[in-house]
This record gives sequence, C-alpha cells and structure tokens, in this order.
Amino acid sequence: MLRTDGRNDDVLRDIRITRGYQQWPAGSVLIEFGNTRVLCAASVTEGVPRWRSGSGLGWVTAEYAMLPSATHSRSDRESVKGRIGGRTHEISRLIGRSLRACIDLAALGENTIVIDCDVIQADGGTRTAAITGAYVALADAVTWLAAAGRLADPQPLSCAVSAVSVGVVDGRVRLDLPYEEDSRAEVDMNVVATDAGTLIEVQGTGEGATFARSTLDKMLDLALVGCAELNRLQSQALALPYPGVLPEPKGKKK
Amino acid sequence: MLRTDGRNDDVLRDIRITRGYQQWPAGSVLIEFGNTRVLCAASVTEGVPRWRSGSGLGWVTAEYAMLPSATHSRSDRESVKGRIGGRTHEISRLIGRSLRACIDLAALGENTIVIDCDVIQADGGTRTAAITGAYVALADAVTWLAAAGRLADPQPLSCAVSAVSVGVVDGRVRLDLPYEEDSRAEVDMNVVATDAGTLIEVQGTGEGATFARSTLDKMLDLALVGCAELNRLQSQALALPYPGVLPEPKGKKK
Amino acid sequence: MLRTDGRNDDVLRDIRITRGYQQWPAGSVLIEFGNTRVLCAASVTEGVPRWRSGSGLGWVTAEYAMLPSATHSRSDRESVKGRIGGRTHEISRLIGRSLRACIDLAALGENTIVIDCDVIQADGGTRTAAITGAYVALADAVTWLAAAGRLADPQPLSCAVSAVSVGVVDGRVRLDLPYEEDSRAEVDMNVVATDAGTLIEVQGTGEGATFARSTLDKMLDLALVGCAELNRLQSQALALPYPGVLPEPKGKKK
Amino acid sequence: MLRTDGRNDDVLRDIRITRGYQQWPAGSVLIEFGNTRVLCAASVTEGVPRWRSGSGLGWVTAEYAMLPSATHSRSDRESVKGRIGGRTHEISRLIGRSLRACIDLAALGENTIVIDCDVIQADGGTRTAAITGAYVALADAVTWLAAAGRLADPQPLSCAVSAVSVGVVDGRVRLDLPYEEDSRAEVDMNVVATDAGTLIEVQGTGEGATFARSTLDKMLDLALVGCAELNRLQSQALALPYPGVLPEPKGKKK
Amino acid sequence: MLRTDGRNDDVLRDIRITRGYQQWPAGSVLIEFGNTRVLCAASVTEGVPRWRSGSGLGWVTAEYAMLPSATHSRSDRESVKGRIGGRTHEISRLIGRSLRACIDLAALGENTIVIDCDVIQADGGTRTAAITGAYVALADAVTWLAAAGRLADPQPLSCAVSAVSVGVVDGRVRLDLPYEEDSRAEVDMNVVATDAGTLIEVQGTGEGATFARSTLDKMLDLALVGCAELNRLQSQALALPYPGVLPEPKGKKK
Amino acid sequence: MLRTDGRNDDVLRDIRITRGYQQWPAGSVLIEFGNTRVLCAASVTEGVPRWRSGSGLGWVTAEYAMLPSATHSRSDRESVKGRIGGRTHEISRLIGRSLRACIDLAALGENTIVIDCDVIQADGGTRTAAITGAYVALADAVTWLAAAGRLADPQPLSCAVSAVSVGVVDGRVRLDLPYEEDSRAEVDMNVVATDAGTLIEVQGTGEGATFARSTLDKMLDLALVGCAELNRLQSQALALPYPGVLPEPKGKKK
Repeated sequence: MLRTDGRNDDVLRDIRITRGYQQWPAGSVLIEFGNTRVLCAASVTEGVPRWRSGSGLGWVTAEYAMLPSATHSRSDRESVKGRIGGRTHEISRLIGRSLRACIDLAALGENTIVIDCDVIQADGGTRTAAITGAYVALADAVTWLAAAGRLADPQPLSCAVSAVSVGVVDGRVRLDLPYEEDSRAEVDMNVVATDAGTLIEVQGTGEGATFARSTLDKMLDLALVGCAELNRLQSQALALPYPGVLPEPKGKKK
Repeated sequence: MLRTDGRNDDVLRDIRITRGYQQWPAGSVLIEFGNTRVLCAASVTEGVPRWRSGSGLGWVTAEYAMLPSATHSRSDRESVKGRIGGRTHEISRLIGRSLRACIDLAALGENTIVIDCDVIQADGGTRTAAITGAYVALADAVTWLAAAGRLADPQPLSCAVSAVSVGVVDGRVRLDLPYEEDSRAEVDMNVVATDAGTLIEVQGTGEGATFARSTLDKMLDLALVGCAELNRLQSQALALPYPGVLPEPKGKKK
Repeated sequence: MLRTDGRNDDVLRDIRITRGYQQWPAGSVLIEFGNTRVLCAASVTEGVPRWRSGSGLGWVTAEYAMLPSATHSRSDRESVKGRIGGRTHEISRLIGRSLRACIDLAALGENTIVIDCDVIQADGGTRTAAITGAYVALADAVTWLAAAGRLADPQPLSCAVSAVSVGVVDGRVRLDLPYEEDSRAEVDMNVVATDAGTLIEVQGTGEGATFARSTLDKMLDLALVGCAELNRLQSQALALPYPGVLPEPKGKKK
Repeated sequence: MLRTDGRNDDVLRDIRITRGYQQWPAGSVLIEFGNTRVLCAASVTEGVPRWRSGSGLGWVTAEYAMLPSATHSRSDRESVKGRIGGRTHEISRLIGRSLRACIDLAALGENTIVIDCDVIQADGGTRTAAITGAYVALADAVTWLAAAGRLADPQPLSCAVSAVSVGVVDGRVRLDLPYEEDSRAEVDMNVVATDAGTLIEVQGTGEGATFARSTLDKMLDLALVGCAELNRLQSQALALPYPGVLPEPKGKKK
Repeated sequence: MLRTDGRNDDVLRDIRITRGYQQWPAGSVLIEFGNTRVLCAASVTEGVPRWRSGSGLGWVTAEYAMLPSATHSRSDRESVKGRIGGRTHEISRLIGRSLRACIDLAALGENTIVIDCDVIQADGGTRTAAITGAYVALADAVTWLAAAGRLADPQPLSCAVSAVSVGVVDGRVRLDLPYEEDSRAEVDMNVVATDAGTLIEVQGTGEGATFARSTLDKMLDLALVGCAELNRLQSQALALPYPGVLPEPKGKKK
Repeated sequence: MLRTDGRNDDVLRDIRITRGYQQWPAGSVLIEFGNTRVLCAASVTEGVPRWRSGSGLGWVTAEYAMLPSATHSRSDRESVKGRIGGRTHEISRLIGRSLRACIDLAALGENTIVIDCDVIQADGGTRTAAITGAYVALADAVTWLAAAGRLADPQPLSCAVSAVSVGVVDGRVRLDLPYEEDSRAEVDMNVVATDAGTLIEVQGTGEGATFARSTLDKMLDLALVGCAELNRLQSQALALPYPGVLPEPKGKKK
C-alpha cells in the first residue's frame, strides 16, 4: 500500500537545505521536509547568561515557534496570549538539549549561541526538521566564531545531529510522517541521532494506544536509516563555502 | 549627493511581491523593499468576533511581529517576555486601520480576515512594506471568498492601499529609507495612501528635532509619488491569476 | 452651522491650567479642555535608567492612563486586566516623544523626569490635553531642578510644546473636538507643535474614509492656530510663581 | 504633647466631602482627610456577574488604586508591572466587604455597583478615607437607581458606614494618623463602623511590636468617637440635593 | 447546644504538631487543627534581599498556598491562572507580619528565612493553623542557624506566636471554627497572640452583618484562651530534640 | 559495585502506596519511591471542557507541581513567578497522556477527572512516581464514579499504568535513580508501561553525551522489569477496599 504522497514506507520526503537565508545571523538556514518549512537562525552574542558567567563555558539554547499562518487553520499568537504553551516549551527544550549534545561548551568559550526555529509552514515533523536545520545553522555560527578568533578551541563540534519522525500508520511502520499521517498515527516517535549512529534522544508515544517492544525496535531501525540520510544531506550542504562575509579575526561581536 | 545604496532621493528600493508564498492562508504574500522582507498572510474565518456578531458586518484586523533573527542584533521574543511591546501594538493597529479604509465591511459579510505581517528580515520601512504587502494578501483573500460564494456583495474593495516612508536625512528629503538612513533621520514620516491619490494615514515625527510646515509639504509630495509607484506594482502582481486552488462556491471554510 | 456646544469651527473649548495640584511631584498640573480633565504630574528622580547610565544625558518619559470612572460607561482597569492596551501604549509613547523634542537632555544632566498623565474625566482630546498640560508640569520640574542646582546647564528647555486635535465633522474642518464630534468625525488629526510654529508630530487618520491632500492642508492650518493659542495660555500660567516650595541648592532628591 | 499638625490626640483632620466631582458616574465623591485625597466613584451597570445571575440579588464591589504621583516618591504603576500588589488587593477587598455590610442586595435588585477609589494624594489613612467617601458615592448611586425606578425595594441602605485609623504613636493613642505618624506608629488599627455604633471590621496590627489588650480597648473607644463624627459629616453632605441630573423612571442604564 | 463535632464552645479541635516532616528545609512542621492540615516549612538562605543588603538585619517572609485538592471541590491552581489571588496575598502577608513580631532581625543577622505554608487539607482555620505551625518551623530554623554558628546573637526569638479563629455561630461565640461553622458565621475573627498574652494582630469581620462592641470583647477573651492552649502545645512539641541532623558550626548553607 | 543506598542495579527503592490520604478528592494517594513523596489526587467533576461537550466522551487531565520546600534548596513558587516553567508543562502533559492511554473515554461518559500530582519531597524520579501513584488515584476515582452510577460503561480502565526511570550511572545501567545518581547520569530514560507489558511512552536522553542502540535496549529491558514490579504493588494496594465512603447511585457530584 503506497502512502498518499506516493513514497515507500522507508523514504524521506524531499529535503531542501538553504544556507544564508537571512543576512544578520551568523547562521541562517531554511530547511524543508516536503511542505514543512522551518527557518533556523543561529545568533551569536559575546558572554553567557549570568548564572554561567566566569565558568569558561559557552552556552547554546533554542527557541521554537510557529507563525500563526503556518498551520491549516490559523493559530493564535503566543505573544498575544501572553504565555508560551506547553508544546512550544517542550520542543524548545528538546532542540537545545539535542544541539548541546554535539558541542563542547568549553571549546566554545564564553559565547552564547541562540538558535531560533520559526516554522514558516507546518505539515508534520516540524520539530525534527528544526533540529536537522538547527545543526547546519549552528555549524555556520561556529565557522563564523572561528573566523573571528573567538573560540577557546578550534573545533567545538564533536558530531553532526539530525532528527526524524517515525510512526505506525495503517498498521505499518513509516518514516517522516506528514501531517495527514501524523494526525492518525497509532504510535509516534521522534529520534535524534548523530552521524556516528549513536542516539541523543528517543521519544515514543502511543496515541490513545499502547505498543509492543518489537514495534519500538522496528521504528528505531527505520529512524536510524532516516537520520543517516539526513546527515548525508547536511554534509553535502555544508561542503559549500560559508554563505556570507566572515569576520576578521578578533572582529567585534555580531 | 548619492545615497549609500546609490539611489536618487526620490527612488524606491527594489520592490518584489511574491504571491502564494504559503499554502494554507487564503492570501499569502512575501513582499521585499530592498533587504526588508515581510511575510503577509490573510487568513479567513467564518463569523466575526462576538461584539460584532449579528451586525451583518465583517471584520478585518492585523497583527505585526518581528522574528528574533530579523534584526541586526537578535531581539527578544515577545511571547517569551509575556507581553507585546508598545511599538508592536502601534504598528498592528496602524495596519488594521489602513486596510479597513479600503474595504466595505458590509459587502464582506460576516467573515473575519486576519492579516499576519511577520518580518523575516528588517532593514527599515517594515511597517510600510507590511501595509503594501498586506493589501495584496487581502485582495487574494477576497478573491478566495468570492469564489466560495461567501461575500455579501461581489466587490468589497473600494481602492488599493500602499504605504511608504519618507524622511529628512543629511538635510535632504528622501523616499523609502533603509535602516542606515532611518536611524539618523531628523524627521521621519509614514504615509498610507490609496490608488486614487487620497490619504488614509499620515504620521510624521521629529526625531529629537522639530520641522517646518514646508518640510512636511515636501515630504508628502514625495510620499505620494512613492505610493503611486507601489500601487502600480501591486496591480501588476495582482494581474496574474490567483496562485492556488480556489474553493467551489459555498465551499467550507478555510 | 454652529457646533453642539455653540463654538465656531476655529475656536478652542474653555482651557483651564491649574499648577501645583498635588503636593509631592516637582510639577503637578490639572489641565481642562472643556469637560476633559487630565492630571499631569512630573516626578524627578536622580539618575537615569541603566541603559543610559554614564552617558551624561538625562531622560524624560511619560505614562498615560485613564481612571475607570473617567469615561461615559466605566472602563476596566488595565492593572486588573494585567496588561496595558495598545491605545495606552501608543499615547504614552507620543507624549514622551513630544516632550523630548523640547528639552536638551545633556543640559538636563543625569536626572529622570517621569510625566504621569492620568485622565480624570474624558470628553475627547485627552491626548492633546495631556501633552499641553505635561509641558507645563515639565517646566515646573525644570524650575525645581534649577533651584536644587542639579541641572548640567541652566536652561534645558528649547521651546514650548502644545497639542490639539482637528477633524472633519459634518463635512467641516473643526478645532478641538469633544467626544460627541470625535466619535463621528470622518477624519481625525492630532498635531503637536512648538511655540516657534514648527511641528513635532502630525498624525492624521481617515476613520473608515480617506481624505484629500487639500483637506490635510486645511486641518494643519487650523491646528497651528489652536496650538498658538494654547502656547499663549501656557505662558500665562507659567508667568505666575512656582506653586510650591523650591529646594535649596544641592538639596536632596525629591 | 501636641501632634505635629497641632491637633489633640482625639481630633480628626479637616474632612471635606465634595459630591458630583465627575460627570459620568452615578455617584462621584472627592473626600479629603487633611492632605489625603481620594476620588470615590460609584458606577452602575445593569445586571450582575454571571455567577450571580438569576439570583435576584445585586452586587457591590470595589477597586482601590493609587496614582503614581500620589506618594512622596513616585510609585510604579501596577498596570505597567502587569500585576496588582498584595496591599492593593487587600484594601479593595476591605472596601467592598465594608459597603456590602450596609446594603440589602435583594433590595438592590440585579444591578451592579462598582466603587472605584483612586487615591489622588496620599498622606496616611487612604483606606479609611476611601471607605468613608465610598459610602457617600454609594448613597448617590442608590438615589440614582431609585429615580430610574430600577430598585427592587425603595431603600436598600440599612445604615451608614465610615472608617478611621487609630494608632499608638510616641506612647499615646491617637486618632486619624497622617503619614508622618503612621510610619512610626507602634500599633496601627483600622476600624469600620456604622452610624448605629456597631462594628463592621476591626484590623489591628503591632508594627514590629506587640500590644496589650487594654491598649486595644482604648484604641477602639477612640475609633468609635471618630467614626461617629465622620457619620455626622456624611449626613451633612448627603442632606444637599443630588449633584447632577437624575434619570427618568425606567431611564436607560448609565 | 453542642457543636456538630461535639465540642463545647470554648474548646479547640484536636491539635497535632509533627516536626521534621520533610528532609530538606531547616524547619518542617505538619500542623493539624482537626481535619485542617498545613505543611509549614522554614527554609534558610544566606544573605538578604537586595533592598536590605548591608543593613546587618535579617529577613523573614512567608508564602501561603492551597493545594488544588485540599478543598471540598477542587480549586484552580494559581500558577496555571498566572496570578495570585487577593486572599492568598492577604494571608501570606499576615503570616509574615506575625512571625516578624517575635524575632529580632538584628540578632538573626543577614540570613533570610522563607516560611512556606501549603495547605494539604482545608477544613476552616487554615491561616491560624499556618501561623501556629510556622512558629514551630521558625524555631527549628533558628536552632539550625544557631548550631551552624550563623546567628548574630544567640537567641533572636523574643516570644512564641500562635493564632486562632473565633466567631459567632448560631448566636454563640465559639472557638476554632471548622469550615461548616465558618461558612455560616455571622462574625468571624482571627487573633494572633504571644505567649505573654499580648496581641500581634486582630482581624474581625461582620459577614453580611455588623456586631456590637461587647461581642468583640467576648470573642477576644475566648481567642486569648485558645492561643494560650496552643502555646502550651507548641512548647510541648519543641521540648523534644531537633528532628534532624544539625550542621557543624560555620557549616555551609542549607 | 553497590549503589550509595546499597541497592543492586536492578532493584527499586522502597515503594509505599497510601490510599485515602486526603478526605475530599474521589481518589487521593501518597506514593513514595524512597525519599521521593508525591501526593496524587483525582478529582471528579460532572461535565467536560467546552470543546468536548456533547461528544459523549469524558476527559482526563493532569497537573504536576512541586512544593517550594520539596527540593534541596528551596525553589521559587510558579504562582509567584506568574508562569509555569517548561519542565512543569512537560511533565503535566506526560502524566495526562499516560493515563489517557489506559482509560476508555467513551465508557467514562461526560465526566472530567483532574489528577493533581504535587511533589511533597523530591529525591529523583518524581515524574515516574507521579504516574504510578496517579494510576491508583484514577482507579479509586473510577470506583467512586461506578458507585455513583455515573459511568457510561461499567469498566473504563483497560489496563494498569506504571512508570520508572532507568539510566547509565558510573557506566552501569541502573533502575529507579535517586537524585544523587540522576544528577550525574550519562543517559536518563523514563518508561511508561502497562501491566500487559506494552509501552505507552519512552523518553531517553543523553545528558551531554550520546548512547548506543545496545544501551537503549538494556535500559528498556530493565525498565520493563521495574514496571512489572510496580504493577504488582499497585494491584496489592488496590486489593484493599475503597478507603472512604462511596456515594449512593445517582449521588450528587463530588
């Protein structure tokens, strides 16, 4: 049985990674997983939050948000509601945690990198697209800091990070679910992995149902295949030169 | 004396209008005034806010926001701060007011159109770009409603609306200021006008200085020239067919 | 055609300016434009906000608010709602901007003046009454600072500031609209001007209608006449001695 | 030993009660206890809060606030802070409770009276001045409702309510403390009483000290004397005719 | 006429005081007044709030809250509502004030003690139980600080503090009201007293009724009897050894 | 190598389950995992949230919170901060989702069960203790609803739910981590499972490190052993009679 968009169960949607999408941040990447489009920007500031100051360690954090117009029916703006919802909080924390797993904060030195992941268009898998794009933006921000001579150590990144969703839909284990599948999946799982094939985060949830251990195993197998393919596309995108003007050594903060 | 970007005083930056930028909203326009890029989405919902219900009149409102990564140094997210700033409120109100001046709310029928103007990249003139793009998104949303057979009256739009900034920089009256000029302008003015040459809104401010009545007159002259050119570009963009799939008459709400 | 209150189109309402209305602030003025009554208090504090500290420059800012009982039907308290509305924000920013245009912040030295404009009774034109009264309160606060020997320079005020509304009502351009006219005006404009006849701020809005350039010109003419008369009344009020006890030189902060 | 302002220990400050201070609310009273000035406005609305709807009972509630410029050094605006402080809450609740003790809510019918007590100038005793003034504003609002024919029963007020502070200062029990005494009182007490000499509320607090039962007794004696005098002044003020235009029977809501 | 729970009018409910209820805070007491159960924890931190820093004085403050499941029908969580209600504020302030009356803040030295009173089960009298239990937790925290050698002076506590409610129910003056009596009391009073028989706070309120001076006197008599009995139970509980491990002198902060 | 508390790697801490801890909620359970103590209360209300009304389906939701005094150093109260943190949101959502997996909402009928999980003392594993205790509270609430004759169907619970943490500490895979181990674990995982051995939720995170697929497998094996033991203890606790008074059929809501 083919999927609505014609893919086989183990195939990713079309993935597009556009570096240098915005002019100001040190890293700015538009990532597309099919119709899902997320803008991932990595902004560098000198210094670290007060609670970390003087430790010699840098800091990486992330904020996820959705444009009101990104969803099928318009969603209310969290700034207007005056509070951030539970889902937004949860995903922001997940992205930050995932990226911190691949960076040596001592090597980063006392610099802060904030990753903003803003969903321009949502069609399932926004959090996994965000993590995958955020890694590329982070890599560009690190290149920028290296050029500026502001790293404590030349290569703070220890591995590449990507993420993908898997789920059980119509009784079949499938990779990279669009909204149409996600909304009726019996089990839903997000996996964050490194290019060494190790895991950073695994979150699997039965949606009004429970699932067997063997199903979990199959989903993990498929997710790791997806992450490996995403790592390949990240490498390919990062093989091109930095998409903007790099600062001079000891350049002033951006 | 030429401007930093080589333009004459009375020339707009490069203007680009991309319709159909997002797939879900009835109107979705990316507008660019040079490096300023604003995504304007017009979402349609059936019915009107409670205080207006039963009046037979429709409603048009707008929300303006800036991505944190849109500005030279990253700006804090208003959803995280838990409140909307004065500037954001002011611009949202201005956009809504400007669009309501060109639409017959009785003809719209009891439908609500929310215009979201999200600044992707900021380089001066974000509010005027937002108004100019929002009109195009609004026109698409009206076309969508017409196709769905949901308008009380066939043509609710009475005129086209565009906006531009003018200012006094280096002692000269200049059109469409980028950030570099805007930040050091002595006088700053935003003008919203119709394609009939009439005015909707005029906001002129001395920035730590006052200005003569004659300066005001010159700025208005120049702004009206700019608005006329923007109207021409809007017409040109709207001459192309609707960039998505129109609903069937009496189609269900989008 | 006479106006409801019997005035000609180009005549202000009865204006009353009462200095020294409250005992604690350095400047405290009750201003009345007919039935509109606004209490304008200028409070002085030593030092400036942190972001300005060490610059040698002073700071002037304003907060506008309305008593719940000031309006025809009681309005909800913004402190109870837990957020300040867009209109309040907008007017507070306008008042602050207008006053900063007439004061040399270097001459003020590192002092902060906060102007609180609290509407006791609303009958149209509250923002223009607030600006006009706030200038008088500011002048008293400057006198107080001068007596205390705390100014960096003897006369930081470069001009006087007043404001008035004009509008098109029943097809006629009219000065200083009460609520009854304001609520049905086709065009509404607020003009802030100096006693030198120059402009600080011009805000004109079509209310569900657009307006011709020539209408704008007529409204500006009339507004400048009104502002000149208001400047005359401000001078007259300020010709009387300071309405309280002035501090001794190097006196302690108020 | 005389008090700083020359009064004997058992004498009130100069009390002034001005009815009809504002034009819109059904009752609007400026009350002054010496330099303490509080504006008490009673606004009438048809109907009651949802949780009370259909009960046949009316509702009376109060909101207390302080202008930023009312205090010796300017206090921050609670609307700007985005939350109401504990002291404000406490006093608002006290005022509401005190007034509800003197009114028969069944006789009031399904009408709501909101009493806004806004402190224009603070010099000690603002809450007791507020209660005393609020009663007069409430009485005017009841007269207004009676004229409009909207009461379920002709006389809903069962008694008059006034309040006064007493305290131990310099080892002496004193009546109606101004700020200078209040800030150094060892014991501080607020008493709300009726014109029948019965009590509604008694709140006594040792300020960093404890106090004997006999001291409490002396303070109560003195407070009841003060309340009786305040009742006399309320009657005197209310003996004059209603200070505005009364509605016609079955008149529309104010 | 016996009370529902069989007590005489002048008898307390069963009082139980359990020290050392939690492991982390320096003082942690579960106090029970019949079915009312309040957990009172006294946490010690080095230093004082910024506004008090350098004064040599310590600080004691309190926060009161109710578990949603503590009340007959579940109450909404204040953290979810995003704001603290008036009643919560009022009680928190009362507890803090009451405890500060019995402690010499200079002797405490620059330490802060925060008392958290969380109601586990509510059946009337939660605020008086909280004060009575909080005193015991405070005493344990002081013992802890003494052991750590962090007090400026050996014995900062000048007296013991307890509190009890009294009220008029069914026309009779009764001690320590459970919810069933409290909810229909005509007069309700909370009294905070010391073991020396002096008063700290007296708050009496007519609930939709007024009360005579003589009733107030009878309620006070009864409350003082109740407080004396509570003091006896506090002493008895504190006669046992400190229920945890005391720090070594100059031990690190807890 | 033994663990600090002497357990083997595959052994749970002492688990205690106390039903009927509070008197008002239909289910109230104190659960202890060693020193971690969580109070889980299940409150029943008739009807469902508005968005679900008329569907015939019931609703189960959860709120998690921590007493300020529960943690080693006191944590700030979220109600005072005015917003709920990301971690709190995340855990509340997890508990709700886990419980909804074991209940047939159609069988529940239009009733709402809110589960409040309040941490009295924290020593690692608060979220897994909360889920395990919440299931028991939920079972009691269902018994209560059955007795009241308010269920649409006699047995809405399809399975039992328990949860436990596992992690890699000192290079060893260990079950049910206390705070001392949790804070230095290299990998941390929470598993929610049913008494049928199927999974509801799996959340594994590398803490500043990544982990191999084989480690994940070992952690899952161990977690499922732990959950089975917890299920046994839940059954044992629920074998005792309902710890309160059950309502009569068609009894009024609790």
